[in-house]
Amino acid sequence: MIFGADYYPEQWTPKDWEEDIRIMKNMGLTRVRLAEFSWALVEPKEGKFDFSFWKKMLDLFHKHKMDVILGTPTATFPPWLAKKYPDVLQVRDGVLRNIGTRRQACFSSPNYKKAVVKVVTKMAQTLGNHPAVIGWQIDNEIGHEGSDIDHSETSLKAFRLWLKSKYKTIQNLNDTWGNIFWGVIFNDWNEIPLPGPHVSAGFNPSMIQDFYRFHSDTIVDFVKLQSDIVRKFSPNRKLTTNLYPSPFLPVIDMSELFTHLDYVSWDNYPTWGDQEEPFPHPFISAMHQYNRGLKDLPFTVMEQISGFQGHDTLGYLPAPGQIQLWMKQAIVQGAEQIVFFRYRTARFGQEQLCYGILDHDKSLTDRYLELQKGISEILPEAKDFASEHFPAEVAVLHDIENARNFKHQPISSGLKHSPVPFAQVGYDIEMATWFAGLNILNVNTHFLPISKTDFSKYKVLVLPLYAMIDDSIVKKIEQFVREGGVLVLGYRSGLKDKNSWMLDSQVPGPFSEMAGVKVRKFEAVGNRNVKFRFRVLPGTCSKICEILEPTTAKVWARYSDNKKFYKGKPVITCNRFGKGSVVYVGASLSPISFMLLYRRTLRMAGIPFTFYGPTVERSFRKGKFKDYEIFINHSGKKALAGFKLLKPYEVRILTKTKK
Amino acid sequence: MIFGADYYPEQWTPKDWEEDIRIMKNMGLTRVRLAEFSWALVEPKEGKFDFSFWKKMLDLFHKHKMDVILGTPTATFPPWLAKKYPDVLQVRDGVLRNIGTRRQACFSSPNYKKAVVKVVTKMAQTLGNHPAVIGWQIDNEIGHEGSDIDHSETSLKAFRLWLKSKYKTIQNLNDTWGNIFWGVIFNDWNEIPLPGPHVSAGFNPSMIQDFYRFHSDTIVDFVKLQSDIVRKFSPNRKLTTNLYPSPFLPVIDMSELFTHLDYVSWDNYPTWGDQEEPFPHPFISAMHQYNRGLKDLPFTVMEQISGFQGHDTLGYLPAPGQIQLWMKQAIVQGAEQIVFFRYRTARFGQEQLCYGILDHDKSLTDRYLELQKGISEILPEAKDFASEHFPAEVAVLHDIENARNFKHQPISSGLKHSPVPFAQVGYDIEMATWFAGLNILNVNTHFLPISKTDFSKYKVLVLPLYAMIDDSIVKKIEQFVREGGVLVLGYRSGLKDKNSWMLDSQVPGPFSEMAGVKVRKFEAVGNRNVKFRFRVLPGTCSKICEILEPTTAKVWARYSDNKKFYKGKPVITCNRFGKGSVVYVGASLSPISFMLLYRRTLRMAGIPFTFYGPTVERSFRKGKFKDYEIFINHSGKKALAGFKLLKPYEVRILTKTKK
Amino acid sequence: MIFGADYYPEQWTPKDWEEDIRIMKNMGLTRVRLAEFSWALVEPKEGKFDFSFWKKMLDLFHKHKMDVILGTPTATFPPWLAKKYPDVLQVRDGVLRNIGTRRQACFSSPNYKKAVVKVVTKMAQTLGNHPAVIGWQIDNEIGHEGSDIDHSETSLKAFRLWLKSKYKTIQNLNDTWGNIFWGVIFNDWNEIPLPGPHVSAGFNPSMIQDFYRFHSDTIVDFVKLQSDIVRKFSPNRKLTTNLYPSPFLPVIDMSELFTHLDYVSWDNYPTWGDQEEPFPHPFISAMHQYNRGLKDLPFTVMEQISGFQGHDTLGYLPAPGQIQLWMKQAIVQGAEQIVFFRYRTARFGQEQLCYGILDHDKSLTDRYLELQKGISEILPEAKDFASEHFPAEVAVLHDIENARNFKHQPISSGLKHSPVPFAQVGYDIEMATWFAGLNILNVNTHFLPISKTDFSKYKVLVLPLYAMIDDSIVKKIEQFVREGGVLVLGYRSGLKDKNSWMLDSQVPGPFSEMAGVKVRKFEAVGNRNVKFRFRVLPGTCSKICEILEPTTAKVWARYSDNKKFYKGKPVITCNRFGKGSVVYVGASLSPISFMLLYRRTLRMAGIPFTFYGPTVERSFRKGKFKDYEIFINHSGKKALAGFKLLKPYEVRILTKTKK
Repeated sequence: MIFGADYYPEQWTPKDWEEDIRIMKNMGLTRVRLAEFSWALVEPKEGKFDFSFWKKMLDLFHKHKMDVILGTPTATFPPWLAKKYPDVLQVRDGVLRNIGTRRQACFSSPNYKKAVVKVVTKMAQTLGNHPAVIGWQIDNEIGHEGSDIDHSETSLKAFRLWLKSKYKTIQNLNDTWGNIFWGVIFNDWNEIPLPGPHVSAGFNPSMIQDFYRFHSDTIVDFVKLQSDIVRKFSPNRKLTTNLYPSPFLPVIDMSELFTHLDYVSWDNYPTWGDQEEPFPHPFISAMHQYNRGLKDLPFTVMEQISGFQGHDTLGYLPAPGQIQLWMKQAIVQGAEQIVFFRYRTARFGQEQLCYGILDHDKSLTDRYLELQKGISEILPEAKDFASEHFPAEVAVLHDIENARNFKHQPISSGLKHSPVPFAQVGYDIEMATWFAGLNILNVNTHFLPISKTDFSKYKVLVLPLYAMIDDSIVKKIEQFVREGGVLVLGYRSGLKDKNSWMLDSQVPGPFSEMAGVKVRKFEAVGNRNVKFRFRVLPGTCSKICEILEPTTAKVWARYSDNKKFYKGKPVITCNRFGKGSVVYVGASLSPISFMLLYRRTLRMAGIPFTFYGPTVERSFRKGKFKDYEIFINHSGKKALAGFKLLKPYEVRILTKTKK
Repeated sequence: MIFGADYYPEQWTPKDWEEDIRIMKNMGLTRVRLAEFSWALVEPKEGKFDFSFWKKMLDLFHKHKMDVILGTPTATFPPWLAKKYPDVLQVRDGVLRNIGTRRQACFSSPNYKKAVVKVVTKMAQTLGNHPAVIGWQIDNEIGHEGSDIDHSETSLKAFRLWLKSKYKTIQNLNDTWGNIFWGVIFNDWNEIPLPGPHVSAGFNPSMIQDFYRFHSDTIVDFVKLQSDIVRKFSPNRKLTTNLYPSPFLPVIDMSELFTHLDYVSWDNYPTWGDQEEPFPHPFISAMHQYNRGLKDLPFTVMEQISGFQGHDTLGYLPAPGQIQLWMKQAIVQGAEQIVFFRYRTARFGQEQLCYGILDHDKSLTDRYLELQKGISEILPEAKDFASEHFPAEVAVLHDIENARNFKHQPISSGLKHSPVPFAQVGYDIEMATWFAGLNILNVNTHFLPISKTDFSKYKVLVLPLYAMIDDSIVKKIEQFVREGGVLVLGYRSGLKDKNSWMLDSQVPGPFSEMAGVKVRKFEAVGNRNVKFRFRVLPGTCSKICEILEPTTAKVWARYSDNKKFYKGKPVITCNRFGKGSVVYVGASLSPISFMLLYRRTLRMAGIPFTFYGPTVERSFRKGKFKDYEIFINHSGKKALAGFKLLKPYEVRILTKTKK
Repeated sequence: MIFGADYYPEQWTPKDWEEDIRIMKNMGLTRVRLAEFSWALVEPKEGKFDFSFWKKMLDLFHKHKMDVILGTPTATFPPWLAKKYPDVLQVRDGVLRNIGTRRQACFSSPNYKKAVVKVVTKMAQTLGNHPAVIGWQIDNEIGHEGSDIDHSETSLKAFRLWLKSKYKTIQNLNDTWGNIFWGVIFNDWNEIPLPGPHVSAGFNPSMIQDFYRFHSDTIVDFVKLQSDIVRKFSPNRKLTTNLYPSPFLPVIDMSELFTHLDYVSWDNYPTWGDQEEPFPHPFISAMHQYNRGLKDLPFTVMEQISGFQGHDTLGYLPAPGQIQLWMKQAIVQGAEQIVFFRYRTARFGQEQLCYGILDHDKSLTDRYLELQKGISEILPEAKDFASEHFPAEVAVLHDIENARNFKHQPISSGLKHSPVPFAQVGYDIEMATWFAGLNILNVNTHFLPISKTDFSKYKVLVLPLYAMIDDSIVKKIEQFVREGGVLVLGYRSGLKDKNSWMLDSQVPGPFSEMAGVKVRKFEAVGNRNVKFRFRVLPGTCSKICEILEPTTAKVWARYSDNKKFYKGKPVITCNRFGKGSVVYVGASLSPISFMLLYRRTLRMAGIPFTFYGPTVERSFRKGKFKDYEIFINHSGKKALAGFKLLKPYEVRILTKTKK
């Protein structure tokens, strides 16, 4: 269990450095992340490298017995590079991502990749064997803020090559995309346009899906390019890269990306910018579990909130106690390393409103003292359990192909949510909601990429929004049910194939037999509520309302809304199949309705659950020596968890004898 | 009375074709529309034509005794055309309408027109005399989705030529537009900019009006170009093109366009995309009457809703019975041919969520059975009346010049409505509202282009938003009133001339004497409500509130709103003029207030009306042999129409002895 | 005291001119403004000048004993200029400001400046000594509607030169901006990008601040360029330029700009476009005082509302009496010259909905009669006081540097307000709110640029949003307090330095000692309300909520909101310092809460105040011969001011013996 800070010595003066180290160590920190924005510092002119600054820093940290994660410095690049090779810059919806901000790199640009190879090689050669260097972070938040999609000419050219490599013949591409539709039959790879900005009707969904896959492959290759270099010249260091809040946001297959790295990191900001309230706590846990699940291993929070942050506006101010709570919650949900962003608040630059542990001045803040105390409180138990496997019998399954598909084809406006123009995170939020229903019942739950998951480890699998199917996965799921598993299957499952063609069967397609249900009609109700009844209990649903026709399934819930002609029709069914069961859920449920669903499902699967109200989160961890039951009170008021009275923002860890 | 389907055999397999024909025929369909998106199929390379696929299809349909409407294939074009001649592509607000979507054609491009002439000539020559071919559809939804306005350089050049042809000298243009204003005096035609995207203040209204007229002329010429070819090589076929929902949307003069075609078609989607509810039924009838009125002839629905549809999102699901109702309503309002969109739902492409009669699979849907039954129900009577003239004594008059004018100068934000960025349909919605008040009183009502209408056929003319006047029309209207007609004249009438200059008189300008009223003050209240009293009954109005000063008119209604200084001032007046009367309406009325107005007006004109509640629509038709009184219950609940109890979504046709 | 009209004889016919002059004179007008949009008229072809039209007009006005303010004709330019020199056009967010609208000039373009020098020189030489010419207006509303920011390549090049001139070395620029942040270290001036459109994270705040300063300098220089020419060739004339509503809108330092001109003008439209209601009257007075304060002299309203106006939409219709009220309010607040916009409403062009004194026709309007009467009513007293100094003991201080800073870094979304995409006027509105609280207590209040103000003239200074400090000003303020002044200091004061670096101290930085308070925590609550208590009285605040820690200050108010963890913490404090006091206000108060604050503050400072309800405004003026107490009833209902009963929209002037 390690604690550290993101540190930018280049932004302060030499007289600060040793003092800063002392302040960090006093707080309980033993590690720093350095250098991820320093390309311009280490290669001030093309080919002229100078790593002396970082060499000095590494010596200093080594002297003070702190170790270092080095960032490869490719998160931004020097102005001279953009000046000399303009094609290194991305374009988004016609807007050039110019030098002077960040996330500008065109990952398809050969000029960019050549320059990256040079600087990363030099850096790994020069600093990679320093004893202070414990590991590397490749780039920084790669693909964040919409930089996963690039509308530049360079990107288009690379896309055409990617397509050629995938489809071999243009006829094959025409057939697979269905280009006979609207008569867009290509004769030549160079006729393929960029599926970018458009006025009214958009581009072929098969094409967009491929455009997203191309970007994913390009970025995964880019990370591999760097990691291969670092592994070669800086051996025996652990490699990672840091993902970002709302982690499903990009089109990148992160589970694939991390096959080239040793562990997963992410940046945990429960509140950011002008948010009025922090994310609900189950959503934060969903994000932790997403990152934990990418490699099914303990993970790192590479940027853990330590102040409140924003670029030009701010919002919610974390209450006293909340910062330490979020830090502890991260550990409980599977983090074994916490690096706080950032040691001291920048006085200049775009992040001068991103408050760190210290303010712009250097006096000790309440946050410093709170985190110092929080670290000492959790360290004894965290040492025992943090690096152990997070135990769970239930998993919610996400799928990058469907994340991509629902970005461009949400079906319901309720599955369309764009907090910023370049993001459509309807899928993400819906997935988090399906997770939240289990979290609130205090059931340890995994959140896993469907393509990498061994289903046999679980009693219950929850599979929402699985519209675009993979045949081999469907088969494995069928086996899971057949052998006794409980599958909770969401609406619109089994709708289309990997080419983005609709199946010539009715939903849920290949799941129909195991689910014992057929769906021939549905309505898209957006965010409007539709009433149903779960036995006698009232519930509400929204987004999509499917009208279920059970073949062999039993009805668990029916629509009860007077305004709908399908009042009385089934909305949730359950079917015995083999030794297992399939619960089919034909609509997006409200949080309370999810509890109704999951309670019955968990009971059926023999998994214990409880409910301590909307602010208490209970988890179980197994340590090397002991077991733990952990209660978190996410509210600023006292809360009861059974007979335990939790203080505001308290994290209480109960130790149990090892089972 | 004909029923058919839009069919895309090129999207299915050879083994489907004969089976599809059998399924269609069983449903009662005898006609298909084919080929409107098939340019890439018939000219896969430049100059290399191949119509064998359609030849085979025509043979097949002929063999099975179904006939065919062929679409000229210009709705999209092959990628090679755009690659070779980039100027064939439109631009909108700086965004290229690229290949891969649709509606990309720059109608001003000589390269585009040359290619069109070639492919249409070849197609007409090759297929135009096939016995299965009963007629042609020119292009598809021409000008839809904002493609009526083109901001490309090619368009600008053509606009300058159009202006030169209209104004002869640049001095004449400067004078007519009033270019002394803000000092934009052109010396040369090439100095004229594109009235396109701008940052703050916009372009001269006289210029914008001409820019719209130029586009109308260009597109009308383009349709004529095609229809001349088709008539030459495929003689004795009926020609049409299909308009689209919210039919006033484009800047194109559709009544002019259809002088080159034999009959009017349109695409009737009472709900589309993520609409929460279908359009109100009087709005649907307004659209039917708009299309009927363009040639004052029976029309065709070329795409009649048969499922629910959308590109990336969906919405309202039509209730059982509602699809057949909308089909029958179309016939009642004047359609003599219904072609359903589409036979089977596409498995791929941008319309894979556009549900047709069948789903993605081929099992018979409830919709299929409902429409099959509906066709057999209405066919006997429809055969008698569908092709006869729709009788009416009342007409609402629309005017393309004012439709254009209010697009760029709505005066009130209440007349500004942009459901999508490229459309401003405030005029459309306001016109439909003036129509709706008569429809709800169950009065057969025409909706007619003012420039093509013989006023003497009517007892009552309703003329809203006639701000930009045509002197000859004003004279004809004066004669209509003088001879005993009742004119309902809307606010802001008689405001400006055809050059978009304000008249140097007070509203209603040349109508002042016949209306017996003068307007020197008005407020633009947006969508906020202002109270008035119609005798003792309360009413509300919005958008524009004119303060009427009667000269010879009598006051029918006065403002009664405490918040307005013009409380007590007249808002509606009535003036005897010659043998007739002019009712002047100084504000946009709420639906219920329109009923107050129209009841008194109809009573004065001796036209019977009734009111069966907000969901029942009654119409009269005259057949060759019998007369008909037709009741439609647009609700999912039972409804009373006098003593008749109508079932949910029932269309009941009462036969009467011929008068 | 002068009254006049904006007149466009070039838009009317020769037979109108003498008649127009007679109508104007009958109304009480003695002056016109002419020619500001007439470049195309006076230089129809490059180098071919023709001023005969204006010569004729000047003769005509001279004959009729009216005088003239000539506009230099650079507000728009002729199409031939843009055709020949495309770089004379601005760009905003990628959109070219093309010919055909207005505000297109790229003020950095040498071609543009050359052409301006020529035309202005010729005009001044030709017309500048005509006896009718009493003065000049340079350009028109310079920088309005977002034209203060130019994203063209020409602008970028000039920006780089400006930076070079400011920073001398690129290293100095890198250090000052903190370009080590995100590694944007420039090697060369030509690497500097345009801080324009961007996708996600924006540009360095230090850079943006300089980009704004550069534009300010460029435009100030441009006005100086013109005024130098005019002064040379048209001596002994008074020079001005006209500012615009919401006067802080641009990034231009207007107090600097007017050092080159003789008096300030502005364009007063209390309602414009589709506004539902006029601006609140204290906001209008704030705008008058802003303009008055720029030179601390009587000012001119160069465009005074005389009808209701808008480009494509209209809104609120001024009630009878309201137009004369706004005219009188302008005089009461410091205007000595009122020029009405415009004499007669344009029949063509983009402003055909901008109603003037007369309508499109020429009959006398109610507005004409109302203004005629209003002029004769106020003239006797206005002659005595209008040109005298507006007396005040209280001043609200605004600062162009902070206006710029809050545009790009509002900190709270409550300080972000963009009624149009190109404007962010959160600072402006907040400043007006701080002013309004004093206005509503009927205290004569100045509104002054902090850099030009002699603090010693005032008893109370109100300084909100002074985040970016100037050390010398802080010192002067400290002296003001020390010597007995009362300072009301707003939240986030003393946050950053002029390089846009955060100070390495806690807010309020250098004000801490005099305010006796420290702020280590704050929340940004947007526009949501937070409760507090001012002694026992309830108040609400929003935007920013600072948690104050008094060192030597006394607490005046505390948070009382149950939802906030800082309930009970101070929000307003007061500290004795030297002979004076500093009231520190840690949040943005609601209007009523401002009254609580100011009442206590004014009482402390010994300044009398009163409150006559929300619609009555009372002011004091000192004339040459008498003193005046003036009551304005801004409502359409009767109102009580103490024992005086004011009629709707009455302006009552009480004469007092001179003190």
